[in-house]
Amino acid sequence: MTSAYVHGYHPRESERLRDQAGTLVELLHSDTSYPAGSTVLEAGCGVGAQTVTLARNSPGARITSVDISADSLKEAKAKVDAAGFTNVQFRQADIFALPFDPESFDHVFVCFVLEHLQRPAEALLALKKLLKPGGSITVIEGDHGSTYFHPDSPAARGAIQCLVKLQQAAGGNALIGRQLYPLLVEAGFDAVHVSPRMVYVDSSRPDLADGFTRKTFTAMIKGIRGSAISSGLIEPESFDAGVDDLYRTTESDGVFCYTFFKGVGERQ
Amino acid sequence: MTSAYVHGYHPRESERLRDQAGTLVELLHSDTSYPAGSTVLEAGCGVGAQTVTLARNSPGARITSVDISADSLKEAKAKVDAAGFTNVQFRQADIFALPFDPESFDHVFVCFVLEHLQRPAEALLALKKLLKPGGSITVIEGDHGSTYFHPDSPAARGAIQCLVKLQQAAGGNALIGRQLYPLLVEAGFDAVHVSPRMVYVDSSRPDLADGFTRKTFTAMIKGIRGSAISSGLIEPESFDAGVDDLYRTTESDGVFCYTFFKGVGERQ
Repeated sequence: MTSAYVHGYHPRESERLRDQAGTLVELLHSDTSYPAGSTVLEAGCGVGAQTVTLARNSPGARITSVDISADSLKEAKAKVDAAGFTNVQFRQADIFALPFDPESFDHVFVCFVLEHLQRPAEALLALKKLLKPGGSITVIEGDHGSTYFHPDSPAARGAIQCLVKLQQAAGGNALIGRQLYPLLVEAGFDAVHVSPRMVYVDSSRPDLADGFTRKTFTAMIKGIRGSAISSGLIEPESFDAGVDDLYRTTESDGVFCYTFFKGVGERQ
Repeated sequence: MTSAYVHGYHPRESERLRDQAGTLVELLHSDTSYPAGSTVLEAGCGVGAQTVTLARNSPGARITSVDISADSLKEAKAKVDAAGFTNVQFRQADIFALPFDPESFDHVFVCFVLEHLQRPAEALLALKKLLKPGGSITVIEGDHGSTYFHPDSPAARGAIQCLVKLQQAAGGNALIGRQLYPLLVEAGFDAVHVSPRMVYVDSSRPDLADGFTRKTFTAMIKGIRGSAISSGLIEPESFDAGVDDLYRTTESDGVFCYTFFKGVGERQ
């Protein structure tokens, strides 16, 4: 879900409600802005899909974006450079062995990372140590089990379930969104607050149908076709029927729902 | 889901966001208020669970609440009288044969009704005829397929699925929430807008855990135990394990999610 955002969607009437945010960026990021001069660690920046938004929303903050992959970092840096932001530095490191002193950062930001980790609770503990007392952590994760749609389709649900199982087999957890609250509490964060960010798509929102349902979610499911089939999780015909039925939800009478979760906590 | 509201919950910090509305009433009703002097038809008021809120939020509107059951109407009237509201009149009638002239009402309100009807689209068409041109319809429905939780539990999902199947066997549709947009469009309403209203419950929200997860949702599932078992849908042990697992989601590390949908449309 790292390239998950939708450009330029504006509902016809002015909407103050967040569940009708025009873009995924707005839905997930609009309430994250760090003060000028504060230090922010982005743990697991990947190819920088969120880094540009972070830098834009907190132009005076000093952001350090870390990833384990040198290739991803290179891509992230190119994105940030192209967008003209100079408040981000990049560093290659493992989230479980970050090269920073304890209490180095005012804030930590983690987006679409915990879902891929075998030991997310341990990662949160490690990140907590890097926070100054009074500092905050913000975690955003999806939850593939939050997906439902109209017309309903067992084939589409089966194809999504393949991703859940593959991620589980790889040590990750595609249902981690709903678990953010207990994970943050268990890691000892204080004042933990989790809010769901539901993406609701019907045909009055064609840009979300295209940008989210088709090009983000369904594209992600299509991307695991080979591994789902070679793992014996599903027959090709069933998988393809499921993907077709996901596309079907973007027709004029279709509806698609997915929920992200955003959790914040403080280090005491 | 007709007695589905939770009293007096106030999160510790002030929240402007609707997905963190303190009560189910606030979540579902806060943006429905009809002008003084306008005429409002509540179609399918049942025992009046929503009628009191309607009357409170639109004190100057003239509300007509209709139900097919004389017993339910009696109960609804007692509730409204006890709350001291005088702007509601009650009338016994079938939603498919309402005793009103065409274009009689400025607004129509329908809550937790379509899910029980064999022909919801037809009901919407009938209601549209009763609206004056420029009048509005507001429809609120749940969607049991929107339910997910932590810890996840196949037994709990199985128990919920029994309700979905029983409602289907009775001609209803427990997954109707996600379909409000196409239903309203198909009935010919204009300017249709649907918004999801997600109830997110973790242990920082103990009143919602008690009032919604335990006493509304799980109580509703428990209520179909006899018919689910006698219909051969499930074994008693599996059903009871499912109910236990739903209660389990209200423990300190548990999370429970459910989404209502609210749709509005206009008659041109």
